[in-house]
Amino acid sequence: MRTGTDVECREVGLRDGLQSLSTFFPTAEKIRWIVAEAASGMPEIEVCSFVPPKLIPQFTDAAEVVAAALAVDGLGVAALVPNLKGAERGFAAGVHKLNYVTSVSESHNRANVRRSTDESVDDFGRIVAARAATAGARDTRLAVGLATAFGCTIEGRVEPGAVMRLAEKFVAAGADELAIADTVGFGNPNDVKRLLTQVMSQFGEDVAIAAHFHDTRGLGMANVFAALEAGVRRFDASLGGLGGCPYAPSATGNIVMDDLVFLLEGAGLRTGVDLDRLVAVREIIVRNLPGEPLYGMYAKAGAPKGFVPASRAA
Amino acid sequence: MRTGTDVECREVGLRDGLQSLSTFFPTAEKIRWIVAEAASGMPEIEVCSFVPPKLIPQFTDAAEVVAAALAVDGLGVAALVPNLKGAERGFAAGVHKLNYVTSVSESHNRANVRRSTDESVDDFGRIVAARAATAGARDTRLAVGLATAFGCTIEGRVEPGAVMRLAEKFVAAGADELAIADTVGFGNPNDVKRLLTQVMSQFGEDVAIAAHFHDTRGLGMANVFAALEAGVRRFDASLGGLGGCPYAPSATGNIVMDDLVFLLEGAGLRTGVDLDRLVAVREIIVRNLPGEPLYGMYAKAGAPKGFVPASRAA
Repeated sequence: MRTGTDVECREVGLRDGLQSLSTFFPTAEKIRWIVAEAASGMPEIEVCSFVPPKLIPQFTDAAEVVAAALAVDGLGVAALVPNLKGAERGFAAGVHKLNYVTSVSESHNRANVRRSTDESVDDFGRIVAARAATAGARDTRLAVGLATAFGCTIEGRVEPGAVMRLAEKFVAAGADELAIADTVGFGNPNDVKRLLTQVMSQFGEDVAIAAHFHDTRGLGMANVFAALEAGVRRFDASLGGLGGCPYAPSATGNIVMDDLVFLLEGAGLRTGVDLDRLVAVREIIVRNLPGEPLYGMYAKAGAPKGFVPASRAA
Repeated sequence: MRTGTDVECREVGLRDGLQSLSTFFPTAEKIRWIVAEAASGMPEIEVCSFVPPKLIPQFTDAAEVVAAALAVDGLGVAALVPNLKGAERGFAAGVHKLNYVTSVSESHNRANVRRSTDESVDDFGRIVAARAATAGARDTRLAVGLATAFGCTIEGRVEPGAVMRLAEKFVAAGADELAIADTVGFGNPNDVKRLLTQVMSQFGEDVAIAAHFHDTRGLGMANVFAALEAGVRRFDASLGGLGGCPYAPSATGNIVMDDLVFLLEGAGLRTGVDLDRLVAVREIIVRNLPGEPLYGMYAKAGAPKGFVPASRAA
C-alpha cells in the first residue's frame, strides 16, 4: 500500500466494466482514462484482460494499453488472466500484478473457464512456476480472485466453508493476494463481515486481502462497510459503476468508485485519491460510451457542505 | 415491535416522499397504497403530515387518510406534526404515534420551523401536556425526529455532542422514541455507528431508538448496517426511495424500503414483510406519479437464486 494511505482502492472499470460492452473503447481513450485517473491519485488500475482477442475483442489492444499504463509514474498496473497462456502474455507485457479468477461455485467455474476449481488451482500452480522461470517476471504479484464467494446464479448460496477451503489451496499454491468477490451481488453485509473476518484471521498475516463487490441489489456500500469492520483495506470498484459480469446477465456493475472513495474519506481513511479530480474523469467514459448508464450518487449531489476528506485533513 | 419480528421497518413515503411533490396523490390512491403495503406486512406507516394545508396542499386530506389507515387491522398509524397545533389535529384524528421533528442544527431548525431548538423542546413539552389532558390521546406515542443529526446544508457538520444534548432534553420532556435522522445525506457509516452506539447506550433502555437515512450520496445502506451494528432495530424508508426534503434541494430521497427489507431479511433479521408483495406495491406509485423517478436495485434484479428471507425461514 502507498505510504500515507490507509486503504487501497483499485479501479477495475477498464476490465470488469468494459468486458461486457460490445462498443470498442478506443485505445487512446483507454489510455487517457488511465492517465487521468492515476493523476487523481488512484494507486492501482486493472487495465485489461489477457484473454483471446476473438473471445473479447475489447482487449485486442491489451499489450499497447499495458505499455502506456506502465509509463505512468507510480501507478500499479494490473491485468486479469484466465489461464497460463494469459499469464505468459502478462509476464511478457510486464504488468505489476496478474489477477487470476476462479469461481468458488464449481458450476460457475465450469461455465466461465470450463474447469473444476481443483483444475484451476493446478493451473495457478503452473503460473507460479512460470513466474519463477521467467526472467523479469519475479516481481510480478499474483492475485487470486475468488468469484461468486457469496452465491452464484447457477448454484444459489455458496457456503463460507467452500471459500475458505479454496482460499487455502490458492495460498498454498503461492498466491500473493486473495480478492473475495461477490460477482453477482448475492452478498449481505452480515455474511460479508463474518466471512471476511474469517479470511482476515486465517490468511491476513500471509497475503493481502481485498474485496470486490457488485451493487446488483443495492448492498454494495453496506458490504464495503462490513468488510471494513472485518479489517479489509483493499477494494475494487469502477468509476461510475460501469459494467458487469458477462456470465451473470442479471448482474449490474461493480460498486461505484466515486461513492466508495467518498465513504472511505468520510470515514477518516486516507485513499490518496482526490474526489473532485476523480469525478471529473467520468467525463471520459461519458464521451466514449454515450449510451451507457453511469451510476453514483456523490457525482450528482457533490460534497456535503464543510466536508473534509481524510486525505486532505492529514 | 410486532411479535415474531426482529426489526421494525416504517414506511415514510406517504409523508417524506409526497411532501416535496407538487402533484396531488389522489386520496383513494393513498389509501390503496397504505392498504397494499400493510398487507405486505409493513407494521407501521407514516401516512401524512398535520401541517397547514395551505403550506403543503398534499396533506389536505390528512384526516381522511388517517381514518382509512386506522381501519387497517394491526397497522401502526403515524403522522408528522410540526407543532402543538398539528399535534392537536393528530390527537383528534386518533393516530397511534406522532412524529415531531426538530433539527439539531439551529440554523436548519429556524429555516424549517422558525424556532430555536430550545423553543422546539418547549413546544414538545406542551404537546406532552396536551396528550395528558386529552381524553383518548393517552396511548398516543410521541416520537421525536432529530433532523440533520450528521450535518446540514447551512451549517455543515453537526457535532455528535449537540445531538446528545438535544436528545437528553427531549427524553426529559417525555419523548417515547427518538429517530436520529440524516436528513440531507451527510452521514458516514463510521459516524453513524459511533453516534448511534452512544445514543443506544444512553437512551436505549428508556425510549425506542430509530434511524432515518437518506441516500443522497449513496451511503444509505452502509449507514443502515452501521446502525444495526450499533444495535438499532427500527428504520424509516420509503418504497422505491420516493421523495426528499423540501428544505434541502440537493437531497435525494429516503433510503429504498425494498432494498432495506432485502438487506435485513438477508441478514437473518425478520421484518415480517413479504418482499415480493412489497415490490408489487411500487406499481401504485408508478401509476400515480408517472414522471417521478423510483429507485431500488432489488426491484430490478429480483431475489438471488435460492434466497430465503429470514421471515420465511422462521
